[in-house]
Amino acid sequence: MKYGIVAFPSKKLQDLANTYRKRYDPHFALITPHMTLKDSFDASDDDIKKIVQQLDELTSKHAPLKIHASRISSFFPATNAIYFRIELTEQLALFHKEISEKIPFGSEKHTYVPHITIAQKMTDSEHDDIFAQLRMIGVDEQDIIDRIHLVYQLEDGSWTTYETFRLTGAE
Amino acid sequence: MKYGIVAFPSKKLQDLANTYRKRYDPHFALITPHMTLKDSFDASDDDIKKIVQQLDELTSKHAPLKIHASRISSFFPATNAIYFRIELTEQLALFHKEISEKIPFGSEKHTYVPHITIAQKMTDSEHDDIFAQLRMIGVDEQDIIDRIHLVYQLEDGSWTTYETFRLTGAE
Repeated sequence: MKYGIVAFPSKKLQDLANTYRKRYDPHFALITPHMTLKDSFDASDDDIKKIVQQLDELTSKHAPLKIHASRISSFFPATNAIYFRIELTEQLALFHKEISEKIPFGSEKHTYVPHITIAQKMTDSEHDDIFAQLRMIGVDEQDIIDRIHLVYQLEDGSWTTYETFRLTGAE
Repeated sequence: MKYGIVAFPSKKLQDLANTYRKRYDPHFALITPHMTLKDSFDASDDDIKKIVQQLDELTSKHAPLKIHASRISSFFPATNAIYFRIELTEQLALFHKEISEKIPFGSEKHTYVPHITIAQKMTDSEHDDIFAQLRMIGVDEQDIIDRIHLVYQLEDGSWTTYETFRLTGAE
């Protein structure tokens, strides 16, 4: 089964992301707005038991994450995805690093750029138009991530939450 | 904020429900296939802290629920929703009753009929055609519900999981 690890920001920030996603993101219907902490990976039922244990430990050590969505950026030319850029704080970098180390499934494809996708799968010219507009509007939202979610994918591409982990530690 | 309490069945049963939902359920994109345990209700941040406590207690008492999706039924003429009927076992009835008692938010509009919706918002004649077909196909799936989810609704109608509760008790 295919799993992923995500954080859903506050309703306020999700609603803001959705004002763009409903127009510009064909994945809109598959999952609500989120910050990916670990890209999708395949795991067996046995693997998942161990992963849940690791996440229980990890989240009992880490404190809620202060995040700042500070500007609208694009992954162009790697992909045409436009996103709320989340500042990579030391706290977030450490948390992401530990998830990668403790849960060595899938591959780390690229440098970690924390983000909330708001537009994707556009043609290059659509991308340029939309990015020019959105970059001007910008974003400046502070938020607290006090829980993360292990999610799995259904055959139609949509994601269901398997389990929630509260960040209850001090780090 | 608007909350609800649901159980997501196994991936297998969700995938089966989605083969119908993608054609017949305009709410398809708002939430993955689920069995509602408590209809949507309004709650403040303070309320939710208490509700989370109640659910922690309740789910530490109750054992995983054995469910049986045994046939395809319709709520017609109350509504045009077609669903997988889940047998109302003693275990499930007791669990639902305790949720209603411990979490006295919203109103119990009707007798509890556990179900997974697979089609809704059709015209009466569409309903009759589709229900006639689906009833013939039927459903016969056993499943285990070992966790429930407190979910909240975004402005666009979609639902995000707030927290997961594992059924870890003996009852």
